[in-house]
Amino acid sequence: MRVPIPIRGPLAFPFRVCGVTQSKMNPNICTICERSFRFVKKQRHISATATILFADIRGYTALSERMDPVVLSEIVSAFHGQCAQAIWDNDGIVNKQMGDGLMAIFNFPIKIEHHASAAVTAAIGIQRHCAVALTDLASRHDKLAIDGLGVGVGVHTGQVEIGEFSTFRSEFTAIGGAVNMTARLESQAAAGEILVSAETAAAAPDLVAGTTTRTLTLKGIEHPVLAHVLNTAH
Amino acid sequence: MRVPIPIRGPLAFPFRVCGVTQSKMNPNICTICERSFRFVKKQRHISATATILFADIRGYTALSERMDPVVLSEIVSAFHGQCAQAIWDNDGIVNKQMGDGLMAIFNFPIKIEHHASAAVTAAIGIQRHCAVALTDLASRHDKLAIDGLGVGVGVHTGQVEIGEFSTFRSEFTAIGGAVNMTARLESQAAAGEILVSAETAAAAPDLVAGTTTRTLTLKGIEHPVLAHVLNTAH
Repeated sequence: MRVPIPIRGPLAFPFRVCGVTQSKMNPNICTICERSFRFVKKQRHISATATILFADIRGYTALSERMDPVVLSEIVSAFHGQCAQAIWDNDGIVNKQMGDGLMAIFNFPIKIEHHASAAVTAAIGIQRHCAVALTDLASRHDKLAIDGLGVGVGVHTGQVEIGEFSTFRSEFTAIGGAVNMTARLESQAAAGEILVSAETAAAAPDLVAGTTTRTLTLKGIEHPVLAHVLNTAH
Repeated sequence: MRVPIPIRGPLAFPFRVCGVTQSKMNPNICTICERSFRFVKKQRHISATATILFADIRGYTALSERMDPVVLSEIVSAFHGQCAQAIWDNDGIVNKQMGDGLMAIFNFPIKIEHHASAAVTAAIGIQRHCAVALTDLASRHDKLAIDGLGVGVGVHTGQVEIGEFSTFRSEFTAIGGAVNMTARLESQAAAGEILVSAETAAAAPDLVAGTTTRTLTLKGIEHPVLAHVLNTAH
């Protein structure tokens, strides 16, 4: 459903009064779209195939121990800003932000035919944008500490459950094995790396052509997992 | 600042129209209070001493691989509901929820003199409430799978930076070494355990009296960390 609701400019005002505003997860959609999943109400959920992306800053815990708080907050802000732009450019939504990490969903609520490719393209954009932003921050602040930083990204495609899994927040999210698998993949990605699951790779063959693969043992996941490694640092 | 703004019932309606509603982080405060930190604006931050609490479901990744999605969503909802109640009962706020995990802040924006004690009391409440909820779920669903579940909690007190570290979301959070330390502590807590840092324990001696201690090596943290172990399973 696409309704031409003005979400920017003066025409948006009457809508804003009624609580219809730009989605915080993606400014190109409004809060009606964000919440317009037909069958989902509190305590219910729907199953959907989606591509999930997790990203976070490698070396952040060590950095947070000793870095000047103002510079630390600049780094976190730059990370979230650059990631969001790359995700929105590919029609994904930034579903969760937590410290130096985030989770994005591709194919919900914005339907994307090639959601695996969209997510991998976003991941490449994240790496490129963040590398530029970190170089810029390093030139202005503690070069040595910031030069050691980088972003790790995990991308996986699968069945997820979407709903509001909270009795007190009306904000949807995705849960399920595929979400946890993505988080685990991301936790294994070194700075500059994008770990793409075999499921995502199969749906986005052009983007992983010629990459190496790595077999991973992931916490809580019984079998070894094969991941394609995209290294943007080289 | 305490202003008697009606946040429930029909008198709350005119306030709701202007966007002043119950905070999603704690229903006992309104969104003005939630955002009324005097010096914090976008891209700025303040330093504050706070107690941070992280909790998540142990065994969740393995469970999410094989559990019926409807039951899985019931477990996640029950976890978040029970945790929130224990946190709110002690004047904390549920700042972040992500899958089977959450982060709570004590002493901001609601000032609490004994925030370390409040957080440890909330952690004990979380363990008790979740144990009851999980037993109830086990009696109604897959007893064997749910019986293996439990909650891990980490609590730490320290200096944090509070602000909106995102150019596109007006939602404050806390970042800094103390936040990451709490997350790392929590990741080491077994089912039923609360790991309390030495800093929190020093400020809440009554609550940790007679508990055992454990020396932990935490990822990204240079020195070994001593934690008090509260085990609610026994």
